[in-house]
Amino acid sequence: MAETERHRLALVSNRGPIAYERVDGERVTRRGGGGLVTALRGLIGSHDVLWVANAITDEDRQVAREQQGRAHAEEDALGNPFELALALPDANDYERAYSEIANPLLWFVQHGLHDGGLSPIIDRATREGWAAYRRSNAAIAATASAAAADRDALMIHDYQLYLVPSLLRESGVQAKILHFTHIPWPGPHAWRVLPFDIRTELIHGLLGADIIGFHTPGDVLNFLRTCEAMLAQDRIEIDYARGSVCFTRDRITREVVVRSYPISIDPAELRQHLDAPEVQAASAALTRTRPERLVLRVERTDPSKNTVRGLRAFGRLLERRPDLHGRVGMLTLLDPSRQSIPEYQDYLEALLQTAEEVNSTHGDDGWLPIDVRIGDNFHTAIAAYRQYDVLYVNAVADGMNLVAKEGPILNERDGVLVISESTGAYDELREHALAVDPFDIEQQAAFLEQALDLPAADRARMAAGLRATVEERHVGRWIDAQIADLDALAPA
Amino acid sequence: MAETERHRLALVSNRGPIAYERVDGERVTRRGGGGLVTALRGLIGSHDVLWVANAITDEDRQVAREQQGRAHAEEDALGNPFELALALPDANDYERAYSEIANPLLWFVQHGLHDGGLSPIIDRATREGWAAYRRSNAAIAATASAAAADRDALMIHDYQLYLVPSLLRESGVQAKILHFTHIPWPGPHAWRVLPFDIRTELIHGLLGADIIGFHTPGDVLNFLRTCEAMLAQDRIEIDYARGSVCFTRDRITREVVVRSYPISIDPAELRQHLDAPEVQAASAALTRTRPERLVLRVERTDPSKNTVRGLRAFGRLLERRPDLHGRVGMLTLLDPSRQSIPEYQDYLEALLQTAEEVNSTHGDDGWLPIDVRIGDNFHTAIAAYRQYDVLYVNAVADGMNLVAKEGPILNERDGVLVISESTGAYDELREHALAVDPFDIEQQAAFLEQALDLPAADRARMAAGLRATVEERHVGRWIDAQIADLDALAPA
Repeated sequence: MAETERHRLALVSNRGPIAYERVDGERVTRRGGGGLVTALRGLIGSHDVLWVANAITDEDRQVAREQQGRAHAEEDALGNPFELALALPDANDYERAYSEIANPLLWFVQHGLHDGGLSPIIDRATREGWAAYRRSNAAIAATASAAAADRDALMIHDYQLYLVPSLLRESGVQAKILHFTHIPWPGPHAWRVLPFDIRTELIHGLLGADIIGFHTPGDVLNFLRTCEAMLAQDRIEIDYARGSVCFTRDRITREVVVRSYPISIDPAELRQHLDAPEVQAASAALTRTRPERLVLRVERTDPSKNTVRGLRAFGRLLERRPDLHGRVGMLTLLDPSRQSIPEYQDYLEALLQTAEEVNSTHGDDGWLPIDVRIGDNFHTAIAAYRQYDVLYVNAVADGMNLVAKEGPILNERDGVLVISESTGAYDELREHALAVDPFDIEQQAAFLEQALDLPAADRARMAAGLRATVEERHVGRWIDAQIADLDALAPA
Repeated sequence: MAETERHRLALVSNRGPIAYERVDGERVTRRGGGGLVTALRGLIGSHDVLWVANAITDEDRQVAREQQGRAHAEEDALGNPFELALALPDANDYERAYSEIANPLLWFVQHGLHDGGLSPIIDRATREGWAAYRRSNAAIAATASAAAADRDALMIHDYQLYLVPSLLRESGVQAKILHFTHIPWPGPHAWRVLPFDIRTELIHGLLGADIIGFHTPGDVLNFLRTCEAMLAQDRIEIDYARGSVCFTRDRITREVVVRSYPISIDPAELRQHLDAPEVQAASAALTRTRPERLVLRVERTDPSKNTVRGLRAFGRLLERRPDLHGRVGMLTLLDPSRQSIPEYQDYLEALLQTAEEVNSTHGDDGWLPIDVRIGDNFHTAIAAYRQYDVLYVNAVADGMNLVAKEGPILNERDGVLVISESTGAYDELREHALAVDPFDIEQQAAFLEQALDLPAADRARMAAGLRATVEERHVGRWIDAQIADLDALAPA
């Protein structure tokens, strides 16, 4: 495979780029968004892509039954052709794997959200959930193995599918395998809360790949350290300088490359949304109602996004700066996330209560300090990206955070990025942003204040730096780097 | 200093071995217990000891005012003479340093008890608390510096006094300085929740010592990694093989040795308690009321002790084994701890509720499955050590856990130790115990079951192994190893 060549690739992910629905008795296709699907769409234009995904909707499951795991032709939102194969995991397994293991257990471990004293509690249900996770992984691996027999490489995505690389390897797949984890990989200590057999199976699952990808060098280092600490009973050699794990199992020695590829956005595609009538309408509405100075948050209702501390820091800004009363507001656009999981419900409740406290303390009839909007705010978000004075990302932990890359591309007011040191995006954007400690709300209030007070020349310089960095490090580079590394591997 | 020599030592710790009270107008002296005081008592017998501690009770403060920081003669519970100097920190500073910084913030960081999403929140109060912690450390450092001018070495204890080593060094103290941390030292990632300036000041504070001691090699490794990760801006060199940090500050380069010394107990002294009439009475009472098979927990009401999961695991044991109903009981002796801190109140409430659930599900008129006793249970604990069939320690994290060493010395029934992998004691006792994952209640239930079912010969062999290990690794070794390392240092 050379880089100029068109490759025959298989993508394997929990959600595909298309969902089927039945409307008035007719099958209709929704072409979804989401960071991963958007990022991977670039592949469809330039390579022959087979996408293997789980059937999620009822109609997805009907399609999967009709196709019996075989691929069928589809096209993406831009009209580019690809093939789609839908896996049909047992519905109960899928539900348990999703809502008991992937979220919240793995998500909480990897974002540092357990309290130790009372959570997590590992019990029989956890092991049943893990068995369901394993069977769900086996179902999509079987579909991928059958449908992708003729592919040059399989690229498997994220924490829902940690066991798929080894399952593919064991099924005899000869193609090269890459697994990419989109969320943070913490150090060995964080993994101690998973039972020994589960965490070992998880890491062995990943080590079935030829290349294991993460967003940042810090994630790579943590993964290598986790292998060293957790697989002490295996014959394993870690090369920290090269980024590799040499691993012997069943008398076969394999080398796995571990590398960072920071994901990004497609600036050109993002800009196309500006023309949508819904965005135009949202822009006009925001122009009418916006405060003089607009602070913007765009996120899911997830404890990792740190909304509660963000709202409290904004309240603290208002205490520090009475002169800003009536003039500054924080628009908080929240995509409701995983509300079937109690921890997510509790967090949403806590953040609504915090917003209410700040608003009742500081607001008045003519001024709502914090405007929380929960729902599908896509068009409003695009409109608000144009208009923010401060884009405020304070995640407790975040694999990358694409909001921090999207905002600067569309912003028209030299808005300042305030960004948590614990995001992947911080690694790339730190020179042109104000970096904050996600736990420290006093510091965040001080930096919001500083962002609002920055002289125009500084704001312009920083905004230009952000734009240039994101334009240069676009998502095409993310994809090309992975394919180049797959090409560079010795033949299977 | 040679090992046979009598040394002139100063111990510096938050609490001293003596507290003063005023009873009916008279000053009385309470000679306290507590693991640290008991462990250090051995020093008083074999060396000239000056103990520098904070004045805590009102009468302590009165004594401190009378003495004005000078040492005065005292004797310990065994009648051995030592000198005592009481520091007099500002009472408000002391309270904030204790209940806002040392507990819960540092304690929670080091035992992994924050949830990330909502705790900790670092705000103005945190920084005010930190300033109070700094002033409290300065107060005891000043007392130590004045009173201990002629000492060969100063041995400073624990997480309440992290800044004291550097403060002593800066005050011109020429004696050798050792700091010992009695709680776990987690890896660098755990420390990220503290602001950069606070965590840097904390580590610089410790690096004023010549020797930094922990209980286990794992703590040492984590400390070295924390220095490497957190002090990247300093000129610092870490030698992982030797266990040292070479550190340049204000143009002075110093080498700090970092080493593990597992604390222990004095078996002979412990056995003396068996003769106390209160212990005899408690033994008789327990013999009358105990179930056929007795599982024992002895701990403080602290989330790190993992009582909630322990009670749930015991409930699960009762589900698994109906044949044990009416025959097995778990005595849970809880010393009420830090009830001024909301997290501790909540945890106590949660554990009482869990006990109630298990008892109402499984118990009946003649059988109380879980007997929770909150209070000063010292004599009952000694009596129960003799009688347990299973000693159950499942701490989420614990620097050492001396219960796991005390029980086997006094036990008369070849009781089995079930011990968490996340305790310091696990490192030394694992060969003779059943090791459990503190998060996994199903595994804990299975191991409690296994412990109750073990053949007598296995139990006898394991109990003998525990006894021999603790007898050999008594607290005298802990002290001697530190003094030998102080002796081996080049002269100041």
